[in-house]
Amino acid sequence: MTELFLTPKLQLLLPLYKSFLQNEIYPIELGVITKPFRQSLPAIKALREKAKAQKLFAPHLSFEEGGAGLNIMEFAQVSELLGTSPLGHLIFNCNAPDIGNMELMHQFASAELKKNYLHPLMAGEIRSCFAMTEPEFAGSNPVNMATVAKREGDQYIINGHKWFTTAADGANFTIVMAVTDPENPNPYMRASMIVVPLNNPGFELVRNISIMGEAGEDYFSHAEVRFTNCSVPVGNLIGQEGQGFALAQARLGPGRIHHCMRWIGICERAFELMCKRAATRKLSDRKFLGQQQIIQAWIAECRANINAARLMVLHTAYAMEKHGAKAAKEEISTIKFFVADVLMKTLDKAIQVHGALGITDDTLLSFWYRHERGARIYDGPDEVHKVSLAKAILKSYGLE
Amino acid sequence: MTELFLTPKLQLLLPLYKSFLQNEIYPIELGVITKPFRQSLPAIKALREKAKAQKLFAPHLSFEEGGAGLNIMEFAQVSELLGTSPLGHLIFNCNAPDIGNMELMHQFASAELKKNYLHPLMAGEIRSCFAMTEPEFAGSNPVNMATVAKREGDQYIINGHKWFTTAADGANFTIVMAVTDPENPNPYMRASMIVVPLNNPGFELVRNISIMGEAGEDYFSHAEVRFTNCSVPVGNLIGQEGQGFALAQARLGPGRIHHCMRWIGICERAFELMCKRAATRKLSDRKFLGQQQIIQAWIAECRANINAARLMVLHTAYAMEKHGAKAAKEEISTIKFFVADVLMKTLDKAIQVHGALGITDDTLLSFWYRHERGARIYDGPDEVHKVSLAKAILKSYGLE
Amino acid sequence: MTELFLTPKLQLLLPLYKSFLQNEIYPIELGVITKPFRQSLPAIKALREKAKAQKLFAPHLSFEEGGAGLNIMEFAQVSELLGTSPLGHLIFNCNAPDIGNMELMHQFASAELKKNYLHPLMAGEIRSCFAMTEPEFAGSNPVNMATVAKREGDQYIINGHKWFTTAADGANFTIVMAVTDPENPNPYMRASMIVVPLNNPGFELVRNISIMGEAGEDYFSHAEVRFTNCSVPVGNLIGQEGQGFALAQARLGPGRIHHCMRWIGICERAFELMCKRAATRKLSDRKFLGQQQIIQAWIAECRANINAARLMVLHTAYAMEKHGAKAAKEEISTIKFFVADVLMKTLDKAIQVHGALGITDDTLLSFWYRHERGARIYDGPDEVHKVSLAKAILKSYGLE
Amino acid sequence: MTELFLTPKLQLLLPLYKSFLQNEIYPIELGVITKPFRQSLPAIKALREKAKAQKLFAPHLSFEEGGAGLNIMEFAQVSELLGTSPLGHLIFNCNAPDIGNMELMHQFASAELKKNYLHPLMAGEIRSCFAMTEPEFAGSNPVNMATVAKREGDQYIINGHKWFTTAADGANFTIVMAVTDPENPNPYMRASMIVVPLNNPGFELVRNISIMGEAGEDYFSHAEVRFTNCSVPVGNLIGQEGQGFALAQARLGPGRIHHCMRWIGICERAFELMCKRAATRKLSDRKFLGQQQIIQAWIAECRANINAARLMVLHTAYAMEKHGAKAAKEEISTIKFFVADVLMKTLDKAIQVHGALGITDDTLLSFWYRHERGARIYDGPDEVHKVSLAKAILKSYGLE
Repeated sequence: MTELFLTPKLQLLLPLYKSFLQNEIYPIELGVITKPFRQSLPAIKALREKAKAQKLFAPHLSFEEGGAGLNIMEFAQVSELLGTSPLGHLIFNCNAPDIGNMELMHQFASAELKKNYLHPLMAGEIRSCFAMTEPEFAGSNPVNMATVAKREGDQYIINGHKWFTTAADGANFTIVMAVTDPENPNPYMRASMIVVPLNNPGFELVRNISIMGEAGEDYFSHAEVRFTNCSVPVGNLIGQEGQGFALAQARLGPGRIHHCMRWIGICERAFELMCKRAATRKLSDRKFLGQQQIIQAWIAECRANINAARLMVLHTAYAMEKHGAKAAKEEISTIKFFVADVLMKTLDKAIQVHGALGITDDTLLSFWYRHERGARIYDGPDEVHKVSLAKAILKSYGLE
Repeated sequence: MTELFLTPKLQLLLPLYKSFLQNEIYPIELGVITKPFRQSLPAIKALREKAKAQKLFAPHLSFEEGGAGLNIMEFAQVSELLGTSPLGHLIFNCNAPDIGNMELMHQFASAELKKNYLHPLMAGEIRSCFAMTEPEFAGSNPVNMATVAKREGDQYIINGHKWFTTAADGANFTIVMAVTDPENPNPYMRASMIVVPLNNPGFELVRNISIMGEAGEDYFSHAEVRFTNCSVPVGNLIGQEGQGFALAQARLGPGRIHHCMRWIGICERAFELMCKRAATRKLSDRKFLGQQQIIQAWIAECRANINAARLMVLHTAYAMEKHGAKAAKEEISTIKFFVADVLMKTLDKAIQVHGALGITDDTLLSFWYRHERGARIYDGPDEVHKVSLAKAILKSYGLE
Repeated sequence: MTELFLTPKLQLLLPLYKSFLQNEIYPIELGVITKPFRQSLPAIKALREKAKAQKLFAPHLSFEEGGAGLNIMEFAQVSELLGTSPLGHLIFNCNAPDIGNMELMHQFASAELKKNYLHPLMAGEIRSCFAMTEPEFAGSNPVNMATVAKREGDQYIINGHKWFTTAADGANFTIVMAVTDPENPNPYMRASMIVVPLNNPGFELVRNISIMGEAGEDYFSHAEVRFTNCSVPVGNLIGQEGQGFALAQARLGPGRIHHCMRWIGICERAFELMCKRAATRKLSDRKFLGQQQIIQAWIAECRANINAARLMVLHTAYAMEKHGAKAAKEEISTIKFFVADVLMKTLDKAIQVHGALGITDDTLLSFWYRHERGARIYDGPDEVHKVSLAKAILKSYGLE
Repeated sequence: MTELFLTPKLQLLLPLYKSFLQNEIYPIELGVITKPFRQSLPAIKALREKAKAQKLFAPHLSFEEGGAGLNIMEFAQVSELLGTSPLGHLIFNCNAPDIGNMELMHQFASAELKKNYLHPLMAGEIRSCFAMTEPEFAGSNPVNMATVAKREGDQYIINGHKWFTTAADGANFTIVMAVTDPENPNPYMRASMIVVPLNNPGFELVRNISIMGEAGEDYFSHAEVRFTNCSVPVGNLIGQEGQGFALAQARLGPGRIHHCMRWIGICERAFELMCKRAATRKLSDRKFLGQQQIIQAWIAECRANINAARLMVLHTAYAMEKHGAKAAKEEISTIKFFVADVLMKTLDKAIQVHGALGITDDTLLSFWYRHERGARIYDGPDEVHKVSLAKAILKSYGLE
């Protein structure tokens, strides 16, 4: 179905990624996600090297930066493929939150920050994280924030409490969102983004939050962290003071489409698992599960939903490529809630088709069912995107 | 959003159709659909002439045939626009069932049938209908059929009972599906399609069926008809004897996408009505309906659904254009049930936003709510398309 | 399933009502609803006499008033049965809006109003209507109202514009809601209810509103009406001046449960039609529609939903009987939106099971599909009831 | 709302259970479910003793057996209360699978089996499990089973492979379903139920299956087990040889309503958490989450759904009490799928209202979201119950 969005570059690359996934990643993924993650670091590292050797590493980066030089619309289609495995993006170094941090620093960081942080990150030598959400405040109102960075001489002294700092465990640095100008009359000009190396004594990883039964570790974890008189040079500021929200917007727009691309991949894999199960599970000697009409209706509905979600994501990527993220703001909000919904519905049906097996960790489905329930919450819950889309539409009808 | 599917021809034509709709059709449509249809025939005829004069008539036909020479993907976008009014397709002579009959006869009818029936139909001088469904048999099983056409000399003697023969009232001829070879071991080779002029004494229009409270008349009607020793020349056969099912498939594939295109137009219009109402209806001096979060959520969900449906229809048109209707068979099944669902959901929400006004005939919504409930039934109910899509998918997983 | 709510009186009466419906009403109902209603008035009148003769008339009234002396919980179960036909409540004189007017006048009208209006209404000699909703104002905000009744001497001079005055065509009088004290600081104390005989020269029936394709007439109609210097004696006031809203609440509480009871009846009938169709419609020589798993799933889901709705309505009736309508306010809001939803879902599935037949007027389904779309709107749209229920619940959690 | 189903006994007991839950169980439950279960065994044991001392232990058992002597309808209401905590049923010794085994053995086991197994189980001295489902066969077809028990002298030699043997880890014995008469022409007469002590050398606990990310241990676990030449005395047979399916039916009917009761408790607790969060979570200085209309709509819808589910479960309990489990077979199927659906929807909305917090293990919601996804699968997936209910209904319409 991708024909319309295919480019010569993709015709060349997609089969390479597909074959890498099938030969190198699918065989080990279940093993990796069902044991403590740190045990798998050597295997991950080896696969990353292999990806580099095959020139498939970091597909979102330009050739000069060691990447595949794909535009957004092309990357969307690679990303979808990588999304079919929980390990896909990590192995190819285009995983959240690193990819978002790369994009942000690429555009806005100083040469020195680039040298010290961005380049090793692009090379896959270190990992990073992003500290924005605070447990005490509703994320849907980004003006609410208690973390402050007070300038003293050539240092920022940061104090604050964050959580859902994804993959902080094992990361080398974080970008933290902190209030630098609390008195600014424009609340959207109060915060800034600052790089903090995690070996800083003022940084504390309080815990890997237990989420859906798993605290996880290293890359598969979401930390609660605390900054206590955490002092960093003012040169660690990204962009200008007070630009925090603008940067967050710049980071989150593409961030959201990255998630959507990945979700399509999950949908396709779950759909494949569902169809395989339906086609092979016997109900009796002569009857297969897939011959049951209720199952057939689900398969058709899932296929239709995934097609719809996929076309919307590809079209949004096309629009972003052509007109920029800002022009595609409403489309991005639309796919954020639409695809997250399709994702959860697809996983739910795939599990139901698997019966008891579907809730075990003997397939990938339960991993995604748990790990992606957050899809309808993170980067703006469904409701925030719906309201914001509707307001934009109603504005064109004269309602402010 | 259409950018990706826009062609130079469309950039020229779409504004012309839009302006015709706004200036000529929207002002009269509510009046037409709320009084007996025959009263409006002169007005319709006048608009058809205007459309011809502006070279906008019959957009699906080639230049040579007096049309606009659009391909399927282009026509999809014109059709969507025409769908925003209940009168759109009729005025531009691309309404069902005439458009389906034109496509069928164009491909398969003899030169004489073309001269006598197709050409006046293309010119908008006559209307036609299509008699296939029988009340006694489930349409989901097309092999079930009791209407027979027995060859006697150079005549077919047709006997049978049909219903949902759309727009028979006022039509000049029908194409009838009848069994010509009841003993053929292949049940799909038993029926044929034959042209019957409606002034034939063996043809009886039993009634315009009362549907959703309205029997209607002329173009807005669905007849129950009876053929009693109805004798027509064998030359009225379309294609070959026994080809009936093959022709029905050839006719229904494009027919289904025509419906989907039109439904998108209805969705867009209903969405516009809903947004206008939300933006202007006051709940109190300072509060508008559109400021209610529940309404906002609906607007966002409808917008997402319509975007999804629209992209799927356009993509299917693109695929049909590129690879033919047969290759797009599964995509056509997919949009048939997906778009019909989006259509009914959109209408339902638009009505609810209008409150009591929404169920009156003071807006278009109630017309479509009633007239399009059949969308989930005609040309194959949702369930038949879902099962058929699922079986095709499961076949690729080895399940027969 | 009714066992828990059965009383000795019901064990006696229910079979009588059932048999009356089956022998007298079901055979004529389709004929009545598919032709102009006034043609059926003689037949209706004859059946009303028969009902009186069998002591089944006006089951909600006390023995003294000529009724069956049922309490709310008992009446709920009779009402459900009557709801299985579009004519049930009318024939037994417990149809809206008459039943609501009876309840209101019984409690609050003066002896003279009772003599002149209530008693002939209870006897089924006249019909009545209720004029509250105004097209220019959102019904969800009952303080918005432009109709005024100005006292001049011993007369009220009423001016205003109402619509959805159900069954005004052919009625003898209306109760009108009008502002009598526009300056009252408490907006809920501004309006009053006044009886207006429809032969008053200041009353105009502007039109029977065309709703879902049908303007209807007499009992099956909803009028737009206008009051122009309409003068009535002050003695026509119901209750006290300024009590309008209190009376409206008193009228609407039971009014809503009456609708819910009736909807359960519609659900049961639609369910029966659906099952009959599924059990008898052949897909092929050996296969029935009801053997299709998708149809089976719908039947099970509809059954579950109707059971749920029914238990909730009966429980609410039980609670109203025991503790009064006020104590059951939240339960009434709950069933209003819950049952309306089950109703529309059940009708939708029943139609789909009938295929093309389902959208014709050859069954009752299309009548209800059109006439009951308003169920989610009238007497407070779903959304108003949901918000009001949620606010009441959240209040108990300390949120005002 | 329970008034209708309240009995004097319940009026006395419910407050006692409520207070025990609030004072003893709620304070420790989150701690217990977020650490390895065996660490909490001493605390659980202590609470069980306290429950015994307060005569609240084993409420489903008769006074003579040390229970509270409740009938099914009364127990339903206690069970609902216990369901508000993941530890409720366990502490009061009415947890699955023990309660099912107690009911089964109480009715069908020999005096010696009762003495050796049932009595210590009722006293809470041991735990038990139930081995029926096999990974290789679809549970929806109970005739498919490979485990065999071959009689040799006065022993059964059992060989087979089972999974989802809940709580096998730490249990004292299992009841196993095994084929004893493979050649019986009636496939429903082939299997039997046999007691196997778990210290039998032929029994192997292969693994606690990792389910939704957690293998768990002891009571909170579901085992894969294997019987290899596992030899037990023929006296361990429950009931008669060949009665296995009949016993399974006898066990599963009440078993299903036990689950439904518990699910209502979960729904009520999740609803309470959702309302608390909505009422207290600030979006800004002056705005609470619960003032958002979308949240209000969810609260209302959840309340309506839970009310519906609750009334259906209580009514089913009432019907079982009055007419026996067999007569309530269809009602049991109905609540099995209806309540499981309400349960998952309620949990989903409660999580969404909590935002990021909702997916952490800092509330109970994630525990239930994971642990109860199986509710729509175990003891017969939704689809099996729907089809079976529909077939029973259609039978009454003449379709076999």
